[in-house]
Amino acid sequence: MIQEKENNRGLHRWQMQLHELIYESEKPAGKAFDVALLACILLSIVVVMLDSVASLHDRFGGFFYALEWIFTGLFTVEYILRLICIRRPQRYVFSFLGIIDLLAIIPTYLSILFVGAQSLMVLRALRLLRIFRIFRLVHFISEMRFLTVAVMNSMRKISIFILFVLTVVVILGSVIYLVEDENSGFTSIPQSVYWAIVTITTVGYGDVAPVTTAGKMIASFIMLLGYGIIAVPTGIVTTEMAIAARNRSHSNQACPSCGKEGHDHDARFCKYCGSVL
Amino acid sequence: MIQEKENNRGLHRWQMQLHELIYESEKPAGKAFDVALLACILLSIVVVMLDSVASLHDRFGGFFYALEWIFTGLFTVEYILRLICIRRPQRYVFSFLGIIDLLAIIPTYLSILFVGAQSLMVLRALRLLRIFRIFRLVHFISEMRFLTVAVMNSMRKISIFILFVLTVVVILGSVIYLVEDENSGFTSIPQSVYWAIVTITTVGYGDVAPVTTAGKMIASFIMLLGYGIIAVPTGIVTTEMAIAARNRSHSNQACPSCGKEGHDHDARFCKYCGSVL
Amino acid sequence: MIQEKENNRGLHRWQMQLHELIYESEKPAGKAFDVALLACILLSIVVVMLDSVASLHDRFGGFFYALEWIFTGLFTVEYILRLICIRRPQRYVFSFLGIIDLLAIIPTYLSILFVGAQSLMVLRALRLLRIFRIFRLVHFISEMRFLTVAVMNSMRKISIFILFVLTVVVILGSVIYLVEDENSGFTSIPQSVYWAIVTITTVGYGDVAPVTTAGKMIASFIMLLGYGIIAVPTGIVTTEMAIAARNRSHSNQACPSCGKEGHDHDARFCKYCGSVL
Amino acid sequence: MIQEKENNRGLHRWQMQLHELIYESEKPAGKAFDVALLACILLSIVVVMLDSVASLHDRFGGFFYALEWIFTGLFTVEYILRLICIRRPQRYVFSFLGIIDLLAIIPTYLSILFVGAQSLMVLRALRLLRIFRIFRLVHFISEMRFLTVAVMNSMRKISIFILFVLTVVVILGSVIYLVEDENSGFTSIPQSVYWAIVTITTVGYGDVAPVTTAGKMIASFIMLLGYGIIAVPTGIVTTEMAIAARNRSHSNQACPSCGKEGHDHDARFCKYCGSVL
Repeated sequence: MIQEKENNRGLHRWQMQLHELIYESEKPAGKAFDVALLACILLSIVVVMLDSVASLHDRFGGFFYALEWIFTGLFTVEYILRLICIRRPQRYVFSFLGIIDLLAIIPTYLSILFVGAQSLMVLRALRLLRIFRIFRLVHFISEMRFLTVAVMNSMRKISIFILFVLTVVVILGSVIYLVEDENSGFTSIPQSVYWAIVTITTVGYGDVAPVTTAGKMIASFIMLLGYGIIAVPTGIVTTEMAIAARNRSHSNQACPSCGKEGHDHDARFCKYCGSVL
Repeated sequence: MIQEKENNRGLHRWQMQLHELIYESEKPAGKAFDVALLACILLSIVVVMLDSVASLHDRFGGFFYALEWIFTGLFTVEYILRLICIRRPQRYVFSFLGIIDLLAIIPTYLSILFVGAQSLMVLRALRLLRIFRIFRLVHFISEMRFLTVAVMNSMRKISIFILFVLTVVVILGSVIYLVEDENSGFTSIPQSVYWAIVTITTVGYGDVAPVTTAGKMIASFIMLLGYGIIAVPTGIVTTEMAIAARNRSHSNQACPSCGKEGHDHDARFCKYCGSVL
Repeated sequence: MIQEKENNRGLHRWQMQLHELIYESEKPAGKAFDVALLACILLSIVVVMLDSVASLHDRFGGFFYALEWIFTGLFTVEYILRLICIRRPQRYVFSFLGIIDLLAIIPTYLSILFVGAQSLMVLRALRLLRIFRIFRLVHFISEMRFLTVAVMNSMRKISIFILFVLTVVVILGSVIYLVEDENSGFTSIPQSVYWAIVTITTVGYGDVAPVTTAGKMIASFIMLLGYGIIAVPTGIVTTEMAIAARNRSHSNQACPSCGKEGHDHDARFCKYCGSVL
Repeated sequence: MIQEKENNRGLHRWQMQLHELIYESEKPAGKAFDVALLACILLSIVVVMLDSVASLHDRFGGFFYALEWIFTGLFTVEYILRLICIRRPQRYVFSFLGIIDLLAIIPTYLSILFVGAQSLMVLRALRLLRIFRIFRLVHFISEMRFLTVAVMNSMRKISIFILFVLTVVVILGSVIYLVEDENSGFTSIPQSVYWAIVTITTVGYGDVAPVTTAGKMIASFIMLLGYGIIAVPTGIVTTEMAIAARNRSHSNQACPSCGKEGHDHDARFCKYCGSVL
């Protein structure tokens, strides 16, 4: 709270009220702003998606175009408001959410400057990343942090796993390129590696599939490997989550008389020596 | 037992006997009723399924139609019996199982009132939900509760995961719509998002598959992502189940002085009041 | 050892030697017998498999036929030997492995009695089940028991899960039959349920795939559901395995002085009160 | 450190400096060497992959050929340097990494000796295995060891699981060969077993798919089985990882009287000698 005051020092009264409206969601006004923003984001994404459907674009193209400019206008106003009610706007501009907020409005403006930029309109889908603002809204912060911590702690082990998988697909992709007929789709090593990824992840499109006996044996090996080694990242993440959950379920409090730790959060007496905690 | 008596106060003797028959399965008669009901549900589902097969419908259509009315009659009688042997029928009518029971008979009656309602006949498949009544029969209640608790506790974390997956498929679906040829099936963003879901869940129909190099690289990324992040919900559910199992394995010992439970197996002093256990 | 003696009472000396050769693998002779048997089983399976390949059948059909009779002869002799060197042959005959052993030789004899029985030759693949005899050979018994216990303990929870999955595929299969075009392969409810199973298990052949927007939305829902709920059986089995592993890693020994349990197998003193265990 | 000195005894000063450069990565020079080597490995793999693409081979074939000889030259020089700066070159030659290093250069030389060896060029993809040298670089050794230990400890249980899966696919593959039409792709038992592997691992290419009702029922069974039993290897690996993580979390405290370690965090007395910890 004090830190927040600190941050807002030097702001006018209307700036502080604006700040409260936009950046905080504890009060009804801030909550309403967040809900309205969420609705705008989702609606604008829906418009982007529907506009890409040829038949709908033909019929409602003009309407979608108008809506698009309304949303872009709203997001532009919001972006400017976010800038003027904080003390250090540059920190917001270069933050992750600030960049996303900017990317959400840039493509529409570019599309009138350059004709070729039409295809960049798809980038408006990045607006969806703004949805992660809503975690503030629904009090999922602690779950978010739990997941992030567990996934982050798993990262080093998982990156070894990914490196292992990539090595396997490159080598086995090369081997199957050697043994398989080019006519069955294994036209090059990159293509065969792509097939190996499709197979080891158990996706299995079937657009490319082995036809020779040797190819089928290698394919069977890759499939069984992919089916089995999914256990590795799962094991890693589960173990990290179990550790994170255990750490959270034990207080860090040591018994003042015997010094032992590992007490439950609701414990009032040391379970080892009976002293008051 | 006392509560049950309470519930049945004001019922006639025949109503209570009926109640025992229909709602309880401890006694042989109630068990027999449940088994007969289960058989009717399964048989009626089989009839619905077989009737949808064109060749069988042509040959046995009349027979299936007759069977359908017999089952509908039986379920209607059962529904009425359920209503008249409880003190507060309205509570049953608006309960989950009550609504399912009603949905199981409504479509057949509607099909004679409206010609267009023919297609609603498929809703009779909802009858299958009535199968969950049998848990009462096979004493799987505690396992059911264990699973429900673990899944419920995981819900907040899993909904973050689902939101993350949905964001990923919308953004990557848009990106692949941008880079892929329309002729290979990526005709619109919703279609591309559908493809991204097919890919990230490792289903991989292959009805739509990338053909450009850039598209295949994005596809490979989505596949590896989908292959890896399956670890997250698995880790969440496993951790919650482990916690649920551990809570169950807590000693049942109550503190002799304050009467509270929930002590670890190795605790020597009550963690709430400090007495020797 | 004593129990074994008991079992063999009343057998001649040559019967006991034969019993040792066939039923036990501790001694070199028994081990050699097991290895030879294993080789015969695998070879006979290979012959069955290769014989089903049309081009190989045309060229080596006679050779395969001769081999088949040699293997059948060997297995028949082995079956008879197994019978005559135990005190209660009927117990072997009706045991699981005894039935498998009989099924391994029956189809070949039937094929000369009845012409139509030719197709039963495929049943010879059941011979492969005899491979589980080798666990005796490689001392994997304790791992086998660990897995069996964990899977068995999970069975009640997993059967609820399977029932849930089956209910989901029947209901969603019926719904997609309602909304999808018959021309895209959803010709009947059983066919649609089959598709729903292909989808929820993330297999995704692609022989049947939705084409309407509503169908694709339902398909997306089934895919995400199938992708997510795989966490449930995994969580169940992992939790049971963790419990089985914990039980194995702790001795059941209670401290004679303080009565506490939970000591490691290699503990010689109580970790709570310091007494000799 | 002393052991290293021991190993290097008898080496000239320049050999020791070379050894430090090539085999150690603590010092800047060694680190730079490792990074350069890593870049060469990855670049040479990229060249191999691109060269296999027909259109690129036609345009840049000569350039790729030249690059290939440059990389082969560099790797040959590196191989020789590795040999001359250690005391026992034969130990390096027959080590895993030594064989990989040799395999990385052999195919190129063979391709000029024998015309038919052209296809062996694909073996150059094995160079990628050399990438595992980089773990030394990024200090991932402890994570690597953790994963290796957990996977190794799971091996016996997982091999039972694999044997089970193989038995299932052979038997069910034979059964579906019996019931399915040959025209739908089930032309032989090996082919049907291949299909069963594609199905049980949930890959599902769709190049072969059942068309008869009986075949679809068997397929549904295999799918649900494959979907469910993935829980088994996952459970095994997760449990082993949890044990490995717990062992690591054991207190490092050595008993002051007997010096043994491995005590639980809550142990108050040495479990080996009974002294107060």
